[in-house]
Amino acid sequence: MVFISLHLQSNAKVVVEVLDAYEGRAIDASAKFCREDVNPATGPIFVCGAMPGDVLAIRICAIHPAGIGYAGIGAGALSGRISERLIQQFEIGDAIHFSRGITLIPQPMIGVIGVAPCAGRLSTMDAGAHGGNMDCNLARAGATVYLPVFVEGGLLAIGDVHALMGDGEVGGQGIEVTAEVELEIGIIKNWSLKRPMIETDDVWATVAAGDDFESAVWMAVHDMVDFLTSQLNITDGEALLLISLTGDVRVCQIVTSTPTARVEFPERLLSNG
Amino acid sequence: MVFISLHLQSNAKVVVEVLDAYEGRAIDASAKFCREDVNPATGPIFVCGAMPGDVLAIRICAIHPAGIGYAGIGAGALSGRISERLIQQFEIGDAIHFSRGITLIPQPMIGVIGVAPCAGRLSTMDAGAHGGNMDCNLARAGATVYLPVFVEGGLLAIGDVHALMGDGEVGGQGIEVTAEVELEIGIIKNWSLKRPMIETDDVWATVAAGDDFESAVWMAVHDMVDFLTSQLNITDGEALLLISLTGDVRVCQIVTSTPTARVEFPERLLSNG
Repeated sequence: MVFISLHLQSNAKVVVEVLDAYEGRAIDASAKFCREDVNPATGPIFVCGAMPGDVLAIRICAIHPAGIGYAGIGAGALSGRISERLIQQFEIGDAIHFSRGITLIPQPMIGVIGVAPCAGRLSTMDAGAHGGNMDCNLARAGATVYLPVFVEGGLLAIGDVHALMGDGEVGGQGIEVTAEVELEIGIIKNWSLKRPMIETDDVWATVAAGDDFESAVWMAVHDMVDFLTSQLNITDGEALLLISLTGDVRVCQIVTSTPTARVEFPERLLSNG
Repeated sequence: MVFISLHLQSNAKVVVEVLDAYEGRAIDASAKFCREDVNPATGPIFVCGAMPGDVLAIRICAIHPAGIGYAGIGAGALSGRISERLIQQFEIGDAIHFSRGITLIPQPMIGVIGVAPCAGRLSTMDAGAHGGNMDCNLARAGATVYLPVFVEGGLLAIGDVHALMGDGEVGGQGIEVTAEVELEIGIIKNWSLKRPMIETDDVWATVAAGDDFESAVWMAVHDMVDFLTSQLNITDGEALLLISLTGDVRVCQIVTSTPTARVEFPERLLSNG
């Protein structure tokens, strides 16, 4: 576990060092992990002036993965079919060699990014209104992650960077890496946000976690209806119709006890609305 | 219901006229529909030489939607929140006017494309191993849909074209249109396919329907593991890991009693494998 406490002014830039999801020990096939060992997050970062009801706007300026990462498939993935305990180490350069001439292109993203809840403790294995283990691969360089603030300062924490991860993370891991993450953190007043949103050059996305995937989807759809009605001055029904026609329901990850879904809406339709 | 019977030689080209999902009557808000009225499919097309165990390769050469389409939101969509019965008519040109300056770009796709089962009847509301109401928006011009053959001739049928539909179809409809669809239909011997696959310029996708979305996902993942092990000569575990890193689990539709999921895998990784 990494525990720092950093006080930042709004709009400050910061570089955060992030450990990989297993603190480097997952490459050892004999290692045993309990739930508390996984997804160490660096933080908390106290953002001066952030108050409950505000929104943190966390712009991801860059993600620099370390030179070595690893990925395996979890016990129980594709249950009943695959029993091998596979762990593979990868050199992370401009390209990543998989095997037999298969070359992957890195696309670093932040798996865990979240704030503190009103009260109590949250596992960095879980996702929710606070963000957390969303494993949403839109959280990459150039994107801005918006998180509701529940306590003074927000208390942001970040971890679980992947050099590459497909939507769904069906084997249970991306390429797990330590990394340096450059962020610019701002505060937005007067925006009531129930759950995380992410903005990229192409889309706005609402992100939700649920007890099952379908409940996550419908939360994310509700949130996107809220967003579109406020942005485009249309009715709830028109917003739902617009999502049905041109929004995309996407899978973030579907392998933890709180699977996450997102609804992506084209940025260009908001700019001409 | 449209019932034709057309005998085609393999690799023949054919133009299929397709009615919209409600035979044009959905624009009448007072119209009542029963399950049998929805998604009329044009067919069956008997493909000479197609035998059980073969695969039909249906290349979608072009989709020409008619000039007018419509879309609404179903009763019960976003249950408890939206009670309005909204139906909107759209002129389909190079662009589609939604409202308040919001302009959508058509991307026609085939909602229902399927073959006959071994025995019995299937509703065109449902999806399954036979294809059917997959509502997968990869089924657009330039793509090839692969379907397993269960009876002699395959007995292909096509319907439910949408001028535009987002992944998920969360309001219950895309822009429903009548259309002309140009197809080229071939037969592939010696390929054992359990469920549909779709090939585009960018991806190969396995498509599965389930009683819930998560069961559909895991079927599609199993199918992609089968495909990758056969194409890349890797183990099941390596295939799952590769999907975890660089495949994408995507939502086709999540609003019928048989939601459909797909796993997309990058075409370029197969060509250099």
